[in-house]
Amino acid sequence: MIKIAIAGYGNLGRGVECAIAQNPDTELYGVFTRRNPSDVKTLKEDTKVFSLNDIENHKENIDVVILCGGSATDLPVQTPKLAESFNVIDSFDTHANIPKHFKNVDAAARKAGKVAMISVGWDPGLFSLNRLYAQAILPDGKDYTFWGKGVSQGHSDAIRRIDGVLDARQYTIPVEAALEAVRSGKNPELTTREKHTRECFVVAEEGADKARIENEIKTMPNYFADYDTTVHFISAEEMERDHSGIPHGGFVIRCGNTGLNNEKTHIIEYSLKLDSNPEFTSSVLVAYARAAYRMNKEGISGCKTVFDVAPAYLSPMSAEELRANVL
Amino acid sequence: MIKIAIAGYGNLGRGVECAIAQNPDTELYGVFTRRNPSDVKTLKEDTKVFSLNDIENHKENIDVVILCGGSATDLPVQTPKLAESFNVIDSFDTHANIPKHFKNVDAAARKAGKVAMISVGWDPGLFSLNRLYAQAILPDGKDYTFWGKGVSQGHSDAIRRIDGVLDARQYTIPVEAALEAVRSGKNPELTTREKHTRECFVVAEEGADKARIENEIKTMPNYFADYDTTVHFISAEEMERDHSGIPHGGFVIRCGNTGLNNEKTHIIEYSLKLDSNPEFTSSVLVAYARAAYRMNKEGISGCKTVFDVAPAYLSPMSAEELRANVL
Repeated sequence: MIKIAIAGYGNLGRGVECAIAQNPDTELYGVFTRRNPSDVKTLKEDTKVFSLNDIENHKENIDVVILCGGSATDLPVQTPKLAESFNVIDSFDTHANIPKHFKNVDAAARKAGKVAMISVGWDPGLFSLNRLYAQAILPDGKDYTFWGKGVSQGHSDAIRRIDGVLDARQYTIPVEAALEAVRSGKNPELTTREKHTRECFVVAEEGADKARIENEIKTMPNYFADYDTTVHFISAEEMERDHSGIPHGGFVIRCGNTGLNNEKTHIIEYSLKLDSNPEFTSSVLVAYARAAYRMNKEGISGCKTVFDVAPAYLSPMSAEELRANVL
Repeated sequence: MIKIAIAGYGNLGRGVECAIAQNPDTELYGVFTRRNPSDVKTLKEDTKVFSLNDIENHKENIDVVILCGGSATDLPVQTPKLAESFNVIDSFDTHANIPKHFKNVDAAARKAGKVAMISVGWDPGLFSLNRLYAQAILPDGKDYTFWGKGVSQGHSDAIRRIDGVLDARQYTIPVEAALEAVRSGKNPELTTREKHTRECFVVAEEGADKARIENEIKTMPNYFADYDTTVHFISAEEMERDHSGIPHGGFVIRCGNTGLNNEKTHIIEYSLKLDSNPEFTSSVLVAYARAAYRMNKEGISGCKTVFDVAPAYLSPMSAEELRANVL
């Protein structure tokens, strides 16, 4: 059994707790938290909770630590730190900062002889894999990534910071006509506005100026100004009843040509439709924890991404079973 | 530049000839044929053609040989033989015989210190990868593979062997209602008949008994008896005009559940829509030729499948470029 620890216990940590139980060869060692351990209520009654400050003392008992903190401030510090003692997996998702994060984590993991996998999840993660495979196979082509329909935490938070807003939920929605244009094989040039729309559900304070709130949302630079945005004001009860889930998903589509004169067209499409973004991401993290454990057993160390992991490492099946049953 | 040789020059060999030209880091060394080389007319004028009997004499000049023969009789002999001297790639696609083929090829490749990749293409190949990734991520679920709409060479050949048939083309078509049932997340049990239909276009000899031919097709065991099959009799001109392409494609869909009580549903879907089955397969073969060359440079040897290849090996980009641009 691969003994996995969870560092950080929010939505992602809870998802990992469930995912470990679904796999035949993984077991949960415990949750490590910055909070007072006795204040943390876990989903499963028998889950042990420890202080993150004490994690070094458990070094001999843990095969892999899955970091479940945020990319903004937690992971840039925690991943290199924990890679000094453990095989680690994180879901660092600030695309622009990946090269820097990689460098910091790689130095720590190499020194310790551990495997540290960063940016594991679905984007970055499975979507990245599909971009790579499709680009390598159809070099003469173009790929497109669409996100949604799903909740964007960052955009929801941006609305919540507006004066007079009590709660908000923002859905990113791919434009069906854009998807169809891509699938037609015409390799269209699409603007930001043509690819996605944004739909916002807002609970306003009593007496708040809704017209002003709506205008502030729709004109917010970077977040909303470049999109067709719709705003719906709803009650706190409606928010709780209709928008408490965290669904997400999306599409990676590459269209490319082959032949002596590029006369043949091929479409590769990958899509996800997820009831729960954090639970699905957690499931990806646990599969890569298996890979990290196995790769480290073979003497591999350093920072890795999904690009560096041979698929066979992810499956609990043996190489023989995979060839006989899955190939 | 990675110097690639093609062994066998049919549809697949022609596809490889085109695909090599599309990649920035591959070049075609030449075509090796069992025919008289002067009888082989290549797509590109400057492609050199040699006798397959002489391939050993070119050993020092070739980095990878892509085998473009058939799975029934060519590859079981050729792949182990050529793996004694070269890094090789084949598209061996008789699923049931993969373990045996692997064993034969592995022994030869290990002894020679070469990399031999077998069963590369889209099924086995990309579809296999998607089954593996999806199963590893959603262990509590079920996956489905649908093929088509596309031409099945084996089924077309089976019809051609019927007395009175001059030519035939068989399309395998996934049943839309079955696809929708799978995408709904209900994990339906589907019979062979419920998943695919078969549509046949037949050119009959003048005066042939069409009712008998149609009946022989529809009742043919293994090939058609378990399917809803439609048969259209057409002229040789219509066959040439409307059915000269070799399109194919299909879907791998996995639906799985997560959560404390499996209450969340996730759908992972991968699909291909290909104008030309052999040209697309060729493109996959060339990407894996790059991987074989690189892996062998690193000292790796033996028989490999797509499961054993870390995705980064497939891309002409460096690891740094991939992390910055594709992850």
